[in-house]
Amino acid sequence: MAKFLTNRDENYAQWYNDLVIKADLAENSVVRGCMVIKPYGYAIWEKIQAQLDSMFKATGHVNAYFPLFIPKSFFSKEARHVEGFAKECAIVTHYRLKKDESGEGIMVDPAAKLEEELIIRPTSETIIWNSYKNWIQSYRDLPILINQWANVVRWEMRTRLFLRTTEFLWQEGHTAHATREEAIEETEKMINVYAEFAENFMALPVIKGYKSENERFAGALDTFAIEALMQDGKALQAGTSHFLGQNFAKAFDVQFTDKTGKLDYVWATSWGLSTRMIGALIMAHSDNNGLVLPPRLAPIQVVIIPIYKNTAQLESISVVAGKLKAELESKGISVKYDTRDNNKPGWKFADYELKGVPVRLALGPRDIENNSVEVARRDTLYKETISAAKAVEHVLMLLDDIQKNIYRKALEFRNENTFYVDKWDEFVRILDDKGGFIMAHWDGTPETEEKIKDETKATIRCIPFDAPEEEGNCIYSGKPSTRRVLFARSY
Amino acid sequence: MAKFLTNRDENYAQWYNDLVIKADLAENSVVRGCMVIKPYGYAIWEKIQAQLDSMFKATGHVNAYFPLFIPKSFFSKEARHVEGFAKECAIVTHYRLKKDESGEGIMVDPAAKLEEELIIRPTSETIIWNSYKNWIQSYRDLPILINQWANVVRWEMRTRLFLRTTEFLWQEGHTAHATREEAIEETEKMINVYAEFAENFMALPVIKGYKSENERFAGALDTFAIEALMQDGKALQAGTSHFLGQNFAKAFDVQFTDKTGKLDYVWATSWGLSTRMIGALIMAHSDNNGLVLPPRLAPIQVVIIPIYKNTAQLESISVVAGKLKAELESKGISVKYDTRDNNKPGWKFADYELKGVPVRLALGPRDIENNSVEVARRDTLYKETISAAKAVEHVLMLLDDIQKNIYRKALEFRNENTFYVDKWDEFVRILDDKGGFIMAHWDGTPETEEKIKDETKATIRCIPFDAPEEEGNCIYSGKPSTRRVLFARSY
Repeated sequence: MAKFLTNRDENYAQWYNDLVIKADLAENSVVRGCMVIKPYGYAIWEKIQAQLDSMFKATGHVNAYFPLFIPKSFFSKEARHVEGFAKECAIVTHYRLKKDESGEGIMVDPAAKLEEELIIRPTSETIIWNSYKNWIQSYRDLPILINQWANVVRWEMRTRLFLRTTEFLWQEGHTAHATREEAIEETEKMINVYAEFAENFMALPVIKGYKSENERFAGALDTFAIEALMQDGKALQAGTSHFLGQNFAKAFDVQFTDKTGKLDYVWATSWGLSTRMIGALIMAHSDNNGLVLPPRLAPIQVVIIPIYKNTAQLESISVVAGKLKAELESKGISVKYDTRDNNKPGWKFADYELKGVPVRLALGPRDIENNSVEVARRDTLYKETISAAKAVEHVLMLLDDIQKNIYRKALEFRNENTFYVDKWDEFVRILDDKGGFIMAHWDGTPETEEKIKDETKATIRCIPFDAPEEEGNCIYSGKPSTRRVLFARSY
Repeated sequence: MAKFLTNRDENYAQWYNDLVIKADLAENSVVRGCMVIKPYGYAIWEKIQAQLDSMFKATGHVNAYFPLFIPKSFFSKEARHVEGFAKECAIVTHYRLKKDESGEGIMVDPAAKLEEELIIRPTSETIIWNSYKNWIQSYRDLPILINQWANVVRWEMRTRLFLRTTEFLWQEGHTAHATREEAIEETEKMINVYAEFAENFMALPVIKGYKSENERFAGALDTFAIEALMQDGKALQAGTSHFLGQNFAKAFDVQFTDKTGKLDYVWATSWGLSTRMIGALIMAHSDNNGLVLPPRLAPIQVVIIPIYKNTAQLESISVVAGKLKAELESKGISVKYDTRDNNKPGWKFADYELKGVPVRLALGPRDIENNSVEVARRDTLYKETISAAKAVEHVLMLLDDIQKNIYRKALEFRNENTFYVDKWDEFVRILDDKGGFIMAHWDGTPETEEKIKDETKATIRCIPFDAPEEEGNCIYSGKPSTRRVLFARSY
């Protein structure tokens, strides 16, 4: 176990924070609630971006960029939207500094006050729909399928690296459609894209479902989410897709002429996924030795470490290592050959375990003699010595197997920690005991949901798309219910 | 000529603005000075990003992300830096909105005033060097070679799409080094990367050189720039690389222990290139028919347009077009096959000329009969009919030739519009007449530079790296000078 990490089972929150810092992913900045994403953490984000971006493009979307600033008055136009975001907005009121009276420091120039304050975007529906108004006249202008990669700001009071920060990076899709059906289809398509990304790339099993009214996006008629279970038994919302109906089109007066010549408001969706996913990635798979990264998102997939006592040994190792590296790279694998001489091999082994590099190859003088190489996999920590001639093939197989194994492990954990509960005291006991996903009946009212939250801190994470119809009684009120919903405490 | 564009020779500024709007690259947003980068414009930026990013990585750099917000006090720490940016800062003073007295609208909540105001980054030296302070103890922690892709805000009073906007997108590199020599080497390396990018990808010949003291970045000891000539005879600064000396290390107290155990301040560079480059791309190559994009940065490199009277014709054309498209795509070429039935071929021809698509293929029933295809190149508008069997090979050759030809044309234009001038009245006459680059002697004083600017609006764009030593007399003061510098009016 990495001695500098808090034990995961003793203090999960501290373990998480230690890991983010020690693995050099991110750190808190001097600006309250804002983080610095360090190169290794940002490299994971780049992998996430590249994959999602190609999936968005494959589903017909294009990227664009809208302003960081939103005029204050835009916010009032959609009533629930302003209610959802007004309390956590960074507000620009002035546009110039000047020397203060002492002449030493600087102050805000009171003469440079804005006529209308600008809000730093917490999300971009309002500024984007104000643009769409000018872009859409007829059904021929539809659909608009735009995504934006951007930073957004929500003034959070309690922040945690990656999981909840004042500024974060994300993508936000904003689409415009001629019909309700097409917009709903888009909303579903994108939650499916997120689920596919989570499962196949993040190795993260997720449950797709509807949000209850209480948990919906501010301004949406329906919110679809993917929910994942973390190793401490808490849920994490890992991506949302919103059916916005005609709310924003009405707020910004965006109408179009349909095929029959009739004027109607445009139908909208929005969907987003953020740097929060890096938090999910860490919390879902990592252990007391450090990060466990799925190979498909690992910035370094294979590390090669030479073990040597003198320059002659290093030279002969480097010939073999160089060849291995080149061959693996030609297969699209990212490889680091670490010849730094200021750290011993054992230190390096621990460091790359901490950083979650999926496969480690070690080469010593004896390996050169025997044409062998030591291979270690990060997920199980299993080590073996294999023939150097088979190393490339073996590593490719291993990367594939690690990706699948991490997913399988997370799925098993979720299965073991998903409980079908029909009694209130059991519901409470499980939450207090070990947490997890609880499938329970609910009477469908916001009041009951609110009371359950007040008493247990658990919320309805989603109403799973695939929840079968099943007669039952609400876990709290005892009133009749027709399907189970997913409860959990959450991040 | 595209009728909806203002004639380039009659009103260059209006032509530029028309073109940006009509080619669907960007538009002004409702937020003063901020633009919306539309999908086609953003696709060019994505090409620029991908290319630059790979060049940065090939030279050893990694990406990271630092906060959008900079505490006001950080600004005062580097005296010239604050002077350079204080007058154009967007300032966040509050973090919450609330309902106003009427209960209808919203207002800034006076109770949510920040203790210290936050500046939206106009550039990130201060926030980054405040982080580097914690990252650097010894020479072993150096160099740090980090780049950031980000949005920045400078409150500009006069804005123009892409060229000067309140918010813009850019990359900013921030590196830290153990020695002065290494930092200078990095500064030079990155201006060379920018020049290579400009010449080989943007097809834009540039002159590399030092900025005079007046034109240096606020806080730099030396600024290197690449300067390009636009078709209206004005210069455009297309990328800068700054040697910051130890200024920021001193301002933020960043010291390190060198190999001999001695404490010293860290040496710094920064370098940036922005969405402004899209403005340069447009202004350098485009004409009265619209954009002329270099193939290496064109979002669509080849468009195929079917010419048909009925569905049967379209079907047989589509077989050939589909095959052509697939073959070109397998060579890494981006191809659009435009089968939209609501526009006639002539309209499409004009539209793709406006959008600067380098190669246009047209296929009609007669082409199908004759196994031929009509090929048109955007740069010269030259059309020819060739054998379909040779189309792929021909298009590849053509894309290469167009890239080179655009560069050659821009270089010829610059050569024709670069003047070696020794008399003040000629200097003034050329500037008033047609503009261009003027190579003239200068006495090296900021006072003379200032006077020349006051009288002619021309500034020293750079002191070219390759300007030969040459005895002469300052164009303005008549004092002795040892080399010519580059003067021009500029964007």
